[in-house]
Amino acid sequence: MAGRVSKLKVIPLGGLHEIGKNITVLEYNKEIIIIDCGIAFPEDDMLGIDLVIPDYTYLIKNKDKIKGIFLTHGHEDHIGSLPYFLKEINVPVFGTKLTIGLVENKLREHNIINKVERFSVMAGETIKLGCFKVEFIRTNHSIADSVAFAITTPVGVIVHSGDFKIDYTPIQGEMIDLQRFAEIGKKGVLLFLCESTNVEHPGYTMSERTVGVIFEEIFQDSEDQRILVATFSSNIDRIQQIINSAAKRKRKVAVVGRSMSNVVKTACELGYLNVPQNTMIDIAEIKNYTDNQLVIITTGSQGETMSALSRIASNDHKQIEVKPGDKIIISSSPIPGNEKAIYKVINELLKKGADVIYDGIMDVHVSGHARQEEIKLLHALLKPKFFVPVHGEYKHLKAHEKLALTMGMEKKNIFVMGIGDILELNRESAKLNGTVPSGQVLVDGLGVGDVGNIVLRDRKHLSQDGLMIVVVSMEKETGRMLSGPDIISRGFVYVRESEELMEEAKNVVKEALFKCERRNINEWSYIKTLIKDTLRDFLWHKTKRSPMILPIIMDI
Amino acid sequence: MAGRVSKLKVIPLGGLHEIGKNITVLEYNKEIIIIDCGIAFPEDDMLGIDLVIPDYTYLIKNKDKIKGIFLTHGHEDHIGSLPYFLKEINVPVFGTKLTIGLVENKLREHNIINKVERFSVMAGETIKLGCFKVEFIRTNHSIADSVAFAITTPVGVIVHSGDFKIDYTPIQGEMIDLQRFAEIGKKGVLLFLCESTNVEHPGYTMSERTVGVIFEEIFQDSEDQRILVATFSSNIDRIQQIINSAAKRKRKVAVVGRSMSNVVKTACELGYLNVPQNTMIDIAEIKNYTDNQLVIITTGSQGETMSALSRIASNDHKQIEVKPGDKIIISSSPIPGNEKAIYKVINELLKKGADVIYDGIMDVHVSGHARQEEIKLLHALLKPKFFVPVHGEYKHLKAHEKLALTMGMEKKNIFVMGIGDILELNRESAKLNGTVPSGQVLVDGLGVGDVGNIVLRDRKHLSQDGLMIVVVSMEKETGRMLSGPDIISRGFVYVRESEELMEEAKNVVKEALFKCERRNINEWSYIKTLIKDTLRDFLWHKTKRSPMILPIIMDI
Repeated sequence: MAGRVSKLKVIPLGGLHEIGKNITVLEYNKEIIIIDCGIAFPEDDMLGIDLVIPDYTYLIKNKDKIKGIFLTHGHEDHIGSLPYFLKEINVPVFGTKLTIGLVENKLREHNIINKVERFSVMAGETIKLGCFKVEFIRTNHSIADSVAFAITTPVGVIVHSGDFKIDYTPIQGEMIDLQRFAEIGKKGVLLFLCESTNVEHPGYTMSERTVGVIFEEIFQDSEDQRILVATFSSNIDRIQQIINSAAKRKRKVAVVGRSMSNVVKTACELGYLNVPQNTMIDIAEIKNYTDNQLVIITTGSQGETMSALSRIASNDHKQIEVKPGDKIIISSSPIPGNEKAIYKVINELLKKGADVIYDGIMDVHVSGHARQEEIKLLHALLKPKFFVPVHGEYKHLKAHEKLALTMGMEKKNIFVMGIGDILELNRESAKLNGTVPSGQVLVDGLGVGDVGNIVLRDRKHLSQDGLMIVVVSMEKETGRMLSGPDIISRGFVYVRESEELMEEAKNVVKEALFKCERRNINEWSYIKTLIKDTLRDFLWHKTKRSPMILPIIMDI
Repeated sequence: MAGRVSKLKVIPLGGLHEIGKNITVLEYNKEIIIIDCGIAFPEDDMLGIDLVIPDYTYLIKNKDKIKGIFLTHGHEDHIGSLPYFLKEINVPVFGTKLTIGLVENKLREHNIINKVERFSVMAGETIKLGCFKVEFIRTNHSIADSVAFAITTPVGVIVHSGDFKIDYTPIQGEMIDLQRFAEIGKKGVLLFLCESTNVEHPGYTMSERTVGVIFEEIFQDSEDQRILVATFSSNIDRIQQIINSAAKRKRKVAVVGRSMSNVVKTACELGYLNVPQNTMIDIAEIKNYTDNQLVIITTGSQGETMSALSRIASNDHKQIEVKPGDKIIISSSPIPGNEKAIYKVINELLKKGADVIYDGIMDVHVSGHARQEEIKLLHALLKPKFFVPVHGEYKHLKAHEKLALTMGMEKKNIFVMGIGDILELNRESAKLNGTVPSGQVLVDGLGVGDVGNIVLRDRKHLSQDGLMIVVVSMEKETGRMLSGPDIISRGFVYVRESEELMEEAKNVVKEALFKCERRNINEWSYIKTLIKDTLRDFLWHKTKRSPMILPIIMDI
């Protein structure tokens, strides 16, 4: 086969509704590198599921080809499934310092920190791994130390944007390396994979620094008030700005929420957070200070049920009790699906007399994702031959395709891919060619993949109308009823108030069973179906509800 | 008691998270009138619930005082619980022509149309009922024939805005009667109850007419395409504009979705929709026309699971199959909580090759609710002595309070009320004074109020981790096991793949039961608790999950 020109395969493997998120595979001959290794958050109909990881079947099958994993930044949807992956396939991990720091927290929790090789890489550096040369390029995002990749492959240069925005005035570190993008573009880019989160929004995303200006205004205006700020634990620049405003006024800062404490600790250790001496205090110490000497930073800005802020709002937090006059800033905007939860928290806090400031009332949040003009700029600097929109629902990818078309790209050079699709490239051409096994694996408690459609369908059914259990003991040979039928229900009606209905239901079943007895039927499966059908019809007629019916026959 | 000056009581009785929505009570001496009688939509944690109606305990107790119900407009959250209410308390109903038309559809469905007295009232007319004089004042909203009320009571004039916006260029009917609001304000308003839905948004809500201009643009641009438009069935002006753009191009219009068909029929009959002859066709006839001769109007703009549009998107609709080139307009914006559902529908439609236009991409929707500047205008025209913000979550009411404060109102004259609170007024003063029984009654199928917290808690538990049933038959006197234990699970793990776990679980229970046998324990409740505890600990240790555990002992 020597001399034969191989093709590069690009496969977006992860993502749930957000195609190409979580994990992307680059394969050339017998070598694979992986970009990111994240989780998705469960959909509304995935009842009881904790998180969703990509189906790694293809990678497990091609285990020996995998050279390493490259991480764009330290958010859960980009690093969250690493422990699950590394337990199956142990390969080296490459990321910037903060990203690796956050990965290490994760590996420690899963008790595999000593088994995994990991490398901290600076923006500007290039890692050679097999036939791939991966250059780390500084970007801006809502977490520090984010990068894009320019990957030199045997067929050409592939650029993956990661999650990015263009922040001309970043808080910490430098701005996105636009010059390097331009330089790489000038030399020629074969394929650009670009994120699409905010592609539906015209204009520019504001600088993170604008939030600091608003914080200053609010702090100025809250001289005598205790200040609480809820934000994403990973948004270290946001936290830095809160600390800046606090320190300026000699307020002490306490941190609550497990993930907030972890990230702040890591960020301080690695030098991504600059906290003036004697500013940080333990949450247990807040009782020693007056309101105007305190700022509390907390998780829960998305209204997550078990988060510190939710517990504070429902008077269920050990150390913090909200009181009239508290100033509470919710420094985030709701991720679609979380609106009602966060509004509920806001309502609760307001009812307790707190002064609550949230996005929409004042500009206390900016996105970490590029809007149309920023995305266009990156396209313009790179001028790629081929383009794949990634990181978005299908509607985002289609909107990104439209955007690229308006910039003069040809439709045939744009590929809107699905999860598991293979894009094959050589120096001149690209085409979709086949698929690999792909999908989602649901994680529930310790179970990885043991909850599937049947279990979810049952949970859905149970959640809508509850269940009704019918138990009867029968003599094995004769089919004679020895005891029962007893009826037990849960999640159907409040039994004490519906005794009559339950009694009637019991009689309906009894009647059906007597008929069997009289006709000497003792085929269990027939009897079970009969119980189910009889009861289902009766209950639907009486209540227009369909609980799950479980007939149980004990044979003695 | 003659000569004693009575007080007027104002009681917001309905609403779930939206305080003062659904139903408001005005009471003076032995007379009560009611404003609106709507439903709320279930919260996310109200699993399996169809709709939520207000708790009418207070009104049932004061049944004889009630003179009648006045309806501001025909939306579900204002008329939806009428049938439930009227079955308990039969009083006359007053509304504008379209509102009464929609109420009649509802009464017919519930088979009580012949039992209920109802009166169609024109904007500008006044109804005298006991000591109350209720004047109907024209407003604008996202349904035609909406009104506000100016209610003359023995202590002064109360104005209730209903849901409103200010549309200087309405599609059908006249614009909001600002002159009359001014006139009433000039004479003196004791109390203003004003809606708060959009009070967080600065500026003005655009005229409904602006959507028509965008429709024209899209139709112009879609000459060869079949056009589908999804919108709220109650937004008759929106439907009128779609019909206008269709008729102009000699396109036929077909309507799908049960509520859409009902409303269009009623609106046509009552003269609120103006459909040129030979424009409307039955959905079954669409096969006789080419794409460029068709416009289809459908329900489902909120991504409702069973709606026509959702079924079309998932290839599950009998008459309509989406195909590449179809132009689909989603003419609505997501109500908080519906975002993910509607995005899913959009993604599905795009995947089938349709060209989908939705709010954010083009301005194909305007709200029916006033923004800050419009709300201020009404405050300025009425200049009420006292003010109660209504129709909103607590955060909206607080924002509305702030708005009124900026206009110079005194805080002591503003009352942010909770459901069931009583506001007592005389000519000079107003104060909160006590509460009446209030709350929500859940409707599930035919059951009204038979699903409460315990049932919902069980549904929640079942939905998260499923259930495990342990059945064992025992000899009544001795506690000797006759058969079992058998274990049945649903919604927990996929049993076929977890046989080992289920077998272990069975053994753990068996072991515990043997211990009881050896110790001659035959107290059922003790044994049940033992089974539960043993199994719970085992399963948590093995899976970190907590299914509902139901031990059933059959005694023989």
